[in-house]
Amino acid sequence: MSFYDATVPAFLQILGSLSGLLTKAEAHCKARSIAPEVMLSARLFPDMLPLAKQIQLACDFAGKSCARLTHSEVVSTPDTEKTFEELKARLAKTVDYIKMFKPAQFEGKDAGDVTFPVGPSNTLTLKGQQFVNNYAFPNFYFHAATAHGILRHNGVEIGKRDFLGVN
Amino acid sequence: MSFYDATVPAFLQILGSLSGLLTKAEAHCKARSIAPEVMLSARLFPDMLPLAKQIQLACDFAGKSCARLTHSEVVSTPDTEKTFEELKARLAKTVDYIKMFKPAQFEGKDAGDVTFPVGPSNTLTLKGQQFVNNYAFPNFYFHAATAHGILRHNGVEIGKRDFLGVN
Repeated sequence: MSFYDATVPAFLQILGSLSGLLTKAEAHCKARSIAPEVMLSARLFPDMLPLAKQIQLACDFAGKSCARLTHSEVVSTPDTEKTFEELKARLAKTVDYIKMFKPAQFEGKDAGDVTFPVGPSNTLTLKGQQFVNNYAFPNFYFHAATAHGILRHNGVEIGKRDFLGVN
Repeated sequence: MSFYDATVPAFLQILGSLSGLLTKAEAHCKARSIAPEVMLSARLFPDMLPLAKQIQLACDFAGKSCARLTHSEVVSTPDTEKTFEELKARLAKTVDYIKMFKPAQFEGKDAGDVTFPVGPSNTLTLKGQQFVNNYAFPNFYFHAATAHGILRHNGVEIGKRDFLGVN
């Protein structure tokens, strides 16, 4: 199988499932008269990033990783979303963006160099496959699973099957 | 790069970082006179699995996925661990187990069939690459990141860099 097959479907699966999690979270808020902004700003600890930012970061680690792997322009994505609807639109936009990449663009890129920023002033260069293993996937899944954890902790009736996108 | 390179290092990185998270959690418990079993049984919600089980499941999704991908015997791993030390030993044993697999055992397995149990009485068959993308990685990272979330929520001073294993 191709390097495209090893990366793109993994991102798309979880981006889709995150949209489903937000749909359930929004319904949960409506049913219990919880202000959406309360849920979107929920955190697992005071110095941790809130739910909305976890979703935005999952989008960025998926979309920008595809751009970096294929040596495409890394488009800036300001974090302006303030509602469930806007976050779901961000997810949908990220899915559309990732779907624009063609398998041919990933060919040989597993062994090619990827240079990416780490922190405000440094860059790191890894081979494409290492970039996916060591950086893109763990960061992407981290923010996605943390979003699930925040919602779970706040009583939204979801579980791992929702995270996997099989519910 | 090989299918081995696309799977094994990803598991090893996070299994190593989980051990580091447990070391910090144990020190946190000692410094604050928190009984270890309180932390090991912590959950983000009452009907969610506790910390110890999240670690055990991360071990299983890593080790057993390698076994299934290479058509090796899937060894039973009873969840007997009750202390930080035992859980770190389980992680170390899983790392040793995964390191026994050779790149040659993964050759061509991305396109080969993997049949695995889903639920108590069903099985599912996927191509190796799909098994990794759709099942092994999302499950593995889910439990690893949830373990991080539980510790973070309980005040252990860790962050994403610890989860990535770069601290």
